[in-house]
Amino acid sequence: MSTTNPGFLADFAVMSTHGATPGGGVDRQAGTPQDHATRAWFSGWLAEHGLTEAVDTAGNQFGLAELVPGAPWVLLGSHLDSQPLAGRYDGAYGVLAAAHAVVRAAGEAAAGKLVPVFNLAVVNWFNEEGSRFTPSMMGSGVFTGKLPLETALETRDLAGNTVAAALQDGKPAPGVPPRLDSIARYAEIHIEQGRTLEETGTQVGIVDRTWAAAKYQVQVDGDQSHTGSTRMPDRRDALYGAALVIAAARELTEEFEPGALHSSVSQLQVLPNSPVTIARQVVMNLDLRSPDEAVLAQAMELLGKRIAEAESRSRTEVSLALTHQWGLNPYQPAGVKLGRAAAEALGFSHRDIMTVAGHDSTNMKDHVPTVMLFVPSVEGISHNEAEFTRDEDAVRGVELLTEVARRLVRGDSVEE
Amino acid sequence: MSTTNPGFLADFAVMSTHGATPGGGVDRQAGTPQDHATRAWFSGWLAEHGLTEAVDTAGNQFGLAELVPGAPWVLLGSHLDSQPLAGRYDGAYGVLAAAHAVVRAAGEAAAGKLVPVFNLAVVNWFNEEGSRFTPSMMGSGVFTGKLPLETALETRDLAGNTVAAALQDGKPAPGVPPRLDSIARYAEIHIEQGRTLEETGTQVGIVDRTWAAAKYQVQVDGDQSHTGSTRMPDRRDALYGAALVIAAARELTEEFEPGALHSSVSQLQVLPNSPVTIARQVVMNLDLRSPDEAVLAQAMELLGKRIAEAESRSRTEVSLALTHQWGLNPYQPAGVKLGRAAAEALGFSHRDIMTVAGHDSTNMKDHVPTVMLFVPSVEGISHNEAEFTRDEDAVRGVELLTEVARRLVRGDSVEE
Repeated sequence: MSTTNPGFLADFAVMSTHGATPGGGVDRQAGTPQDHATRAWFSGWLAEHGLTEAVDTAGNQFGLAELVPGAPWVLLGSHLDSQPLAGRYDGAYGVLAAAHAVVRAAGEAAAGKLVPVFNLAVVNWFNEEGSRFTPSMMGSGVFTGKLPLETALETRDLAGNTVAAALQDGKPAPGVPPRLDSIARYAEIHIEQGRTLEETGTQVGIVDRTWAAAKYQVQVDGDQSHTGSTRMPDRRDALYGAALVIAAARELTEEFEPGALHSSVSQLQVLPNSPVTIARQVVMNLDLRSPDEAVLAQAMELLGKRIAEAESRSRTEVSLALTHQWGLNPYQPAGVKLGRAAAEALGFSHRDIMTVAGHDSTNMKDHVPTVMLFVPSVEGISHNEAEFTRDEDAVRGVELLTEVARRLVRGDSVEE
Repeated sequence: MSTTNPGFLADFAVMSTHGATPGGGVDRQAGTPQDHATRAWFSGWLAEHGLTEAVDTAGNQFGLAELVPGAPWVLLGSHLDSQPLAGRYDGAYGVLAAAHAVVRAAGEAAAGKLVPVFNLAVVNWFNEEGSRFTPSMMGSGVFTGKLPLETALETRDLAGNTVAAALQDGKPAPGVPPRLDSIARYAEIHIEQGRTLEETGTQVGIVDRTWAAAKYQVQVDGDQSHTGSTRMPDRRDALYGAALVIAAARELTEEFEPGALHSSVSQLQVLPNSPVTIARQVVMNLDLRSPDEAVLAQAMELLGKRIAEAESRSRTEVSLALTHQWGLNPYQPAGVKLGRAAAEALGFSHRDIMTVAGHDSTNMKDHVPTVMLFVPSVEGISHNEAEFTRDEDAVRGVELLTEVARRLVRGDSVEE
């Protein structure tokens, strides 16, 4: 096989001009003009390549290739939205790879080179990132019934704009979007956003499990007072309490083996956030993630102790609400096996790999057999303009996803 | 003398309904509808009491009693704007006390009970608090030439609104506002916002000095990356770096005698502030204050060391910009002496006291002889809805400020 694909790389370069940032990345938060510009470009791409565009009420954008009228669909995709000042690859690479795979496999079916038993479609899931509108994986969450449509549409960004309003800027599409019960199989390819493939010199990864994770909303309550005149022992400073919690969450990771626990706090709101008034309240997120459920359980317990210390030292009250928790969530073994077989057939070195990040496939895999693939990320950098995947790795991923699409659309077994 | 003043207390109760909050406080940030409502009420009060209203281009609102045509002015005042979710007393008490003192002293002059050599006016300085529009003490800063008018008018709040636009909502006033060179004397009364008067059982305080202070803007620079998949040693988390700085600033105060050093961080902006992207940058304020210049100098040096430790532990870069610094700034001794004499004359227990907080008088005192007075604050609580000064203390303050006004307007010596 060839490790160059001028068509794919040229398309990727053009796509990356939408929402481009000076540092070589993109900024296309969900429903912004930059996201809509990318969606409009993708809409044109679908039309040029003979796919029928359809958009559902949650903003998911499909490109349909009907091969077997009335048959269920093999769906391939990812997301075109991005974090603020993000890289070009996260999500967008997977959507364009899926689009190329769909067009090639559909072309082979039309030419009689493979016999399809399913239809084939690409999807751009709306708002996977969740940076502007929380929660993340919104479009696939609605599609899989995990998130009510009304809740999604009423979600507001910090400026008070709703998802419903942000979606109105999109243009209508002619096709009928598929529903969950008409999907037979799902596949997604993504950059690893970690260093495992790079460090082990492996060409592709077949995702077999997610890390276990616990996500909290943390509220720290103190008391407003004057930053100058209030005596130090009288203060109940919510921002000081929050600082102790942030440091504690980070330092918790040092109590375990390297790599056994990841933690982060990355979003924070301060009230009243005035230069001369001590904060009465801080609300923030806090995540713990581990490839070992026992470590996660121990970390959650230790976090409780550290927070009690932070409360007492800062004279604040800290409440922890567990908003999401999941264990080592497996991908269905037969999907993993099909991914491995496709990599073997193409002669790509591969390994089973866990994903730390969530993906739209983590929603889909609970409903249909799912194949999740990774290509290497240089230095594991992601959610950063410097995010990078080498052209040969990107092209190899398109080849692999195309081979997976062929196997799925012709009905290869995905049962053990 | 009486320690009740039904007129003052009734006016104070009505004034406190403007921008009232459910917790018994007020929320009247500068130039908001709540601030304008309070200003409009005060405008009516001035007219009812025979004072001529004037508003200058920086939004300072005056009530003029011309006693000696063409003579310089004795100015008394404070500010009606507030912090978010603030108390009723901070600033507003001082404006209403000044208004009552002006009306009484002017009435006594009209009745021939005192012979004025100056004119008399009350002022409501615009935006003393600086919570919505930074810097604080904006109106008195422009009046005293410390802040250019254009800079003030172009200042924007976090939503992008300018001071100029916020001031357009005010209504025009008939009078000609006085200028700095026509002011002969200034006096201001304020709640202490500390516990000294309460703990020592003293009825009034005569401010003789400000604490020394150093105010910084702190910028913490890290690198965006994925909150889940980025390995802990690879992270350059600006929010973790900021948390270490916040904790270090607080814990610095424990290295000195109790009360020798106050520190705070109360305003913070995180970029990109997304739930799944590690912060690339945090910008925040940081204040150090002390009644001892040597302690402040030592604290500033130690802060530099603690920040270097925070940088190295979090792999971030922290830059400290000193935005304001002042020493133990004295009030002119003759003004303090006049304040003491007035308290003595009324039989009030008094003591000289330092102010930790800044006041509009700290701008005025650098230009004209200034008398700054304090009344007790229960438990020193301020910038909080629970801020409270007892009626008898509030009324005693009005009596004292009236006596100061009499002495100033008849030209009592303020020179040593």
